Amino acid sequence: MPSETFLYKSDPVRGRQWAEVFRAQAPEIDFRIWPDTGDPARVRFLAAWEPPADIATAFPNLQVLFSSGAGVDQFDMAALPAALPVVRMVEPGIVHGMVEYACHAVLDLHRDMPQYRRQQQRAEWRALPVRTAGERRVGVLGLGSLGQAVLAQLTGFGFACAGWSRSRHSVPGVQCFAGEDELPAFLARTDILVCLLPLTDATRGFLNAALFDRLPHGASLVHVGRGPQLVDTDLLAALATGQIAEAALDVTDPEPLPASHAFWRHPRVRLTPHIASMTQPRTAAAAVIGNLRRFAAGEPMQGLVDRARGY
Amino acid sequence: MPSETFLYKSDPVRGRQWAEVFRAQAPEIDFRIWPDTGDPARVRFLAAWEPPADIATAFPNLQVLFSSGAGVDQFDMAALPAALPVVRMVEPGIVHGMVEYACHAVLDLHRDMPQYRRQQQRAEWRALPVRTAGERRVGVLGLGSLGQAVLAQLTGFGFACAGWSRSRHSVPGVQCFAGEDELPAFLARTDILVCLLPLTDATRGFLNAALFDRLPHGASLVHVGRGPQLVDTDLLAALATGQIAEAALDVTDPEPLPASHAFWRHPRVRLTPHIASMTQPRTAAAAVIGNLRRFAAGEPMQGLVDRARGY
Repeated sequence: MPSETFLYKSDPVRGRQWAEVFRAQAPEIDFRIWPDTGDPARVRFLAAWEPPADIATAFPNLQVLFSSGAGVDQFDMAALPAALPVVRMVEPGIVHGMVEYACHAVLDLHRDMPQYRRQQQRAEWRALPVRTAGERRVGVLGLGSLGQAVLAQLTGFGFACAGWSRSRHSVPGVQCFAGEDELPAFLARTDILVCLLPLTDATRGFLNAALFDRLPHGASLVHVGRGPQLVDTDLLAALATGQIAEAALDVTDPEPLPASHAFWRHPRVRLTPHIASMTQPRTAAAAVIGNLRRFAAGEPMQGLVDRARGY
Repeated sequence: MPSETFLYKSDPVRGRQWAEVFRAQAPEIDFRIWPDTGDPARVRFLAAWEPPADIATAFPNLQVLFSSGAGVDQFDMAALPAALPVVRMVEPGIVHGMVEYACHAVLDLHRDMPQYRRQQQRAEWRALPVRTAGERRVGVLGLGSLGQAVLAQLTGFGFACAGWSRSRHSVPGVQCFAGEDELPAFLARTDILVCLLPLTDATRGFLNAALFDRLPHGASLVHVGRGPQLVDTDLLAALATGQIAEAALDVTDPEPLPASHAFWRHPRVRLTPHIASMTQPRTAAAAVIGNLRRFAAGEPMQGLVDRARGY
């Protein structure tokens, strides 16, 4: 009987796809789907979206906690054993979905599609002035694996691309800004702003009136970070003055967004139900198996969270 | 005084941008904007969207006719001197615009954005099942410079790409089909069909009920070719049965589309006013100057039309 249990606690339909991958690629591991924990003392690895509250007592020999989806902001870090390694999901399925969504949203705004859809409602046949991609300045907040993949695809369309992150990064073909000091210059040159920041104490309420005011008048927003980063009333005010021309939002606070919220029926807000990027069960399971091999070999795992920083 | 006149007969605002490029790159040429023809006997080159009806008598020494935009189907070939070389516009501005539009339209359909926009109207927060790009079969009709550029970008997103054209082509990473015989197999494997065919006698009415019936049930259409290629009533019928799920149309017959046409208000038709791709005056003028150099050197011009074939 295998001595190490990998426990999966998330959507069971997706869990069965994980199980197939584990059976094929890591048959030596005792893969189980919650609530079928087997002997709790054997549980060494847990993949979860929402870990059990009593994690430390329930699984005394737990060695690694994996997030089953993108992000770890749903974890209450303070409630987790201090020494427990926490690992974000870094897998190609999440990246591809985000690249598709962000490129679609940027092209939608770049080519004035929101305005053309409104013209269609009025049966109005009218061409709008064209700007080339090279004349369109796109700026991405967040230069992690998602931000960098999105920028790689956007530069392929010829957009004038920049990126901003807290720490200094270097991305081919992209003007990189870093830290609070350089944020105003980044915003001043950005026509389409894409938010891909992780949710931390520092980014909560980040997309607010002061930030919008630093963008050129008539800039647009693509929000694919986390709902609590956006101050809803500030966005509505910026839309009202035209400071923000259009917004595409994939995340809200709360989710689902109540049907009474002003975003639903705002003519210049496009809203999708947090579908930009989804973990793909098969590639996610394979990515986790890769990290289990690294852990066993004493190598650093991909996506290991800096718990002080929060991502 | 220069002996050779290049006459431009199209939008005069764009003509002034052509004039700047000619002044800088080909100052030896007497560039003129219609109706300022100068001495008609000196007109050796004409760039026009609609050539004058009496072209042969008006300009007895005309050597080349350039189309000022993409396509030459607006020319009445029978009314042009039989020996007059006719040249299509091949320039990067047209290509980039088409790549942007086609990729946006394919991503829009791939990611179910029409359905999400309808859900937003109902304030409905509901994630739809996801397919990866590799599971989405995109097929492009027409493998000229536009079709190949669109496919190059689409393969970068990981779509399962195929192309069809009358004559055999080879495109990296794309399954290529050729001729009438292979059209059914191409259509049978295509979830999102992109039409980029030139308008000829052979492609008039090409997008009809028989073609739609060969697609998988629920396929979608992106039409960026020419309006008369589409049989409107056949598309409406295919949308009614669900054989075609969604359509994005940038071209119609006639243009502008009358406000009473059913396409304007069809919930599963997205309509734009022939804006997918526009000649960019500066890059277009530079491309034409390149062809003038080739012509002077006795080399083949880029985009020279086979007048029997019609493109």
